[in-house]
Amino acid sequence: MTEQKANPVLAEYIRGNMIENRHRGAFCVVDQNGAIVGSAGDVNALIYPRSAIKSLQALALFQSGAVEKFNLNDQDLALACSSHLGEQFHVDGVLRFLEKIGATSADLECGAHAPMNKIARTALRATGAQPSALHNNCSGKHTGMLAVAKALGVSSVGYIERDHPVQVLVRECVERVLGVELTPDHCGRDGCSIPTWGAPLVSFAQAFAKMSSGSNDLPAIYANAGDRLFKAAATNAELVAGTGGFDTDAMNVFAGDLMLKVGAAGVFCGALRGRNLGFALKCDDGNMAAAHAIVAGLLSAIGGHPDAIQQVLATKTAQPEKNWRGFEVGQLQSATAIASYF
Amino acid sequence: MTEQKANPVLAEYIRGNMIENRHRGAFCVVDQNGAIVGSAGDVNALIYPRSAIKSLQALALFQSGAVEKFNLNDQDLALACSSHLGEQFHVDGVLRFLEKIGATSADLECGAHAPMNKIARTALRATGAQPSALHNNCSGKHTGMLAVAKALGVSSVGYIERDHPVQVLVRECVERVLGVELTPDHCGRDGCSIPTWGAPLVSFAQAFAKMSSGSNDLPAIYANAGDRLFKAAATNAELVAGTGGFDTDAMNVFAGDLMLKVGAAGVFCGALRGRNLGFALKCDDGNMAAAHAIVAGLLSAIGGHPDAIQQVLATKTAQPEKNWRGFEVGQLQSATAIASYF
Repeated sequence: MTEQKANPVLAEYIRGNMIENRHRGAFCVVDQNGAIVGSAGDVNALIYPRSAIKSLQALALFQSGAVEKFNLNDQDLALACSSHLGEQFHVDGVLRFLEKIGATSADLECGAHAPMNKIARTALRATGAQPSALHNNCSGKHTGMLAVAKALGVSSVGYIERDHPVQVLVRECVERVLGVELTPDHCGRDGCSIPTWGAPLVSFAQAFAKMSSGSNDLPAIYANAGDRLFKAAATNAELVAGTGGFDTDAMNVFAGDLMLKVGAAGVFCGALRGRNLGFALKCDDGNMAAAHAIVAGLLSAIGGHPDAIQQVLATKTAQPEKNWRGFEVGQLQSATAIASYF
Repeated sequence: MTEQKANPVLAEYIRGNMIENRHRGAFCVVDQNGAIVGSAGDVNALIYPRSAIKSLQALALFQSGAVEKFNLNDQDLALACSSHLGEQFHVDGVLRFLEKIGATSADLECGAHAPMNKIARTALRATGAQPSALHNNCSGKHTGMLAVAKALGVSSVGYIERDHPVQVLVRECVERVLGVELTPDHCGRDGCSIPTWGAPLVSFAQAFAKMSSGSNDLPAIYANAGDRLFKAAATNAELVAGTGGFDTDAMNVFAGDLMLKVGAAGVFCGALRGRNLGFALKCDDGNMAAAHAIVAGLLSAIGGHPDAIQQVLATKTAQPEKNWRGFEVGQLQSATAIASYF
């Protein structure tokens, strides 16, 4: 039987005095020239980036002229890059964004789900109202895609389909910044129904470094857009995730210097803006809690942060778990080996 | 860096035309003599069996004399082996079991959590009542442990601790049927607060074969108890899990011939009773949905079942997933390679 070489263990769940679960994966950290600074596992293997590249997809807002046409501000751009928790301020922000572009929630094709923030979910349930597309964590991105359709002067109907002019442009933008051709041979449908395209993990890390650094490899419009999108997201972290969200807390600790974005099934992409470092990781089994521990361990291993930041990262690399009685029974932690890959 | 040899991929999540997530693990199928019939990965590595061995822990009900003393019936024994979904008939059954042994729900030390069955959870929430220890999926096992304390004539207070006479006896029973010494060097606390002891995966498979076959390796009391416990569980599958539960549905398809028990963090143990085959599996990353697919693939690969059973197993080896809009976006499936390990 042929079996591809396994990626290394990047996170472990310890119960009592034994490892109970192991989470393998790959990560890659690159500098502004795209050179690998640290990596583990097969970084050339194709992954689906899922929601981790909403900021790359948002380049279409610049390319189409939507940013100028609708005078989009940093809050709009942060929402376009978000996987939000469905809190009231997210819903209000998306409604303002929709109004600005002359669209309504009925135009959103992302589907409805309950708010991911528990307080918001309980509050909505108490009103007896059903969750709507506005509560979908991707409603900001979808509003951005409606803006692209408007700027292109095309009907937005079916904008989630890969052959619609909106997705064609989004794909072109992502290809340009990745430097990789995206093909239907490696394509799936995302949770919010738009296409997700497979590409090498290393290419996503490189794209984030380019977006952060305004690389000469990119046309000026992309470089400027990258800088603006990352700044908008990193300084409006509550809009990108929400209250108590992992990305929000991490970006706030870095006070604008970190662009961090989670993607479903154990993906993270990000950049340390001041140092023009880009990174990407994929937990092989798709476990999100493990991906959280790994990205915290990864940021910690990159090092060079103020002590206050290192201390916060240390609290996120190990996540103790309590049982129903409140006994601490174990903890999920990033593998100490991560530091050895640099 | 030393890296232990990776276990093989036993389940995959396919999105579009690419594998998105990979779930590695180990499994072992043995005959009544303990000889390996099929296996994958490191079957000698220690795992925590978690709730998959409630039936082995329930041997203490026989060893202590509790079964005779309280005239326990098959429903009581099935509940002692259960990880139930907290439906009303489970709560009623546990209350009857508690009354029979002269205990109350206040004696249970498992902690409270909401019913795992959604309809039961919603119904309880609608009454405004808080979840109690009775709804804890382990309340049947804990009631059995209270019965052991009563039969031993000791106070049940603190029966969840590893040095309490109840847990000492439970550990002795499990050691006897495993043929493995359980030591505090490989021990953790389970979700319901009792100890979980690490032992080789192969030993759990062998124990299930012994329990099923009434092996000569076991004292008569264990062999008889094993047969009675497995029959009680396999023919009262609704009590062992609940409505729509994976174990319940699988055992019902096999009409009493399959003893199957899930454990947290991706564990399954079981036996094909008519063929005296025992099996055990552990998904390395602890993913439960993957473990479901793997055990279905494993049962299918063992083969020799009527066509009707094979057809049902086929529906469980591949689990299609729909997104918020109802589009089928991918599926979790057992690796076709499983058949090659036999």
